[in-house]
Amino acid sequence: MSHDTYELWAIGWVESPLVDPAVAPKQGDEGSPEATIVFDEAFTEAFRDLEPGAEVLVLTWLHRGRREVLRVHPRDDPANPEVGVFNTRSADRPNPIGLHRVVIAAADGARLRVRNLEALDGTPVVDVKPVLDRVRDR
Amino acid sequence: MSHDTYELWAIGWVESPLVDPAVAPKQGDEGSPEATIVFDEAFTEAFRDLEPGAEVLVLTWLHRGRREVLRVHPRDDPANPEVGVFNTRSADRPNPIGLHRVVIAAADGARLRVRNLEALDGTPVVDVKPVLDRVRDR
Repeated sequence: MSHDTYELWAIGWVESPLVDPAVAPKQGDEGSPEATIVFDEAFTEAFRDLEPGAEVLVLTWLHRGRREVLRVHPRDDPANPEVGVFNTRSADRPNPIGLHRVVIAAADGARLRVRNLEALDGTPVVDVKPVLDRVRDR
Repeated sequence: MSHDTYELWAIGWVESPLVDPAVAPKQGDEGSPEATIVFDEAFTEAFRDLEPGAEVLVLTWLHRGRREVLRVHPRDDPANPEVGVFNTRSADRPNPIGLHRVVIAAADGARLRVRNLEALDGTPVVDVKPVLDRVRDR
């Protein structure tokens, strides 16, 4: 297959006690521990006004995702009928972008401590956005 | 600046009457017309079970975004104090990924008609995901 392509940059990385994909929670509200986003300091001007208490969307690059997978059994359960990956949050998909709604617990320079981030240790971060239903004017 | 990079693939494109960025709405609920996502048929198995009535998240590549911009005046209004782009939904950001919550109006082969998509005509689409607060088990 040939496609138009675009180059994503890592803007930071996840530090997390989650290291084993087999036992990691599938969604952020399923028991994720706190984690830390460590930003590349080249992007300081973009992240330095993120504040504790804010809810934000974190976009990650799920680097272990299998990009050739187009259909999956939801939640890796063979009892669930197979569906197209665009109808699931599977990490296996053509562009394995993870979308995580988290709460900022603390900010210290380039280190952002967050709650409810179900990403594995070492996952690249590619974007952070405000949650729009709370921040209507941005 | 040098960064770790990842290759995004276009999985489709937006067809929309919105062609002028100067007059396009900034958010999907600010008067966006209906638009059509035209998928690359290589991904048929991934998209073919998307159904009318479903609310989905569409991720786009905002190809006109200026990637070197780290701070902006929200909503392009100089009266708004400048903030870091990770605190805004600006299309100008290191990785210009657009995130759009839309409703599927109709599905016809590789063409998906959607409501509330504030993307310009020709914008590449890179992912589609279910809205998780409605679809808890995927």
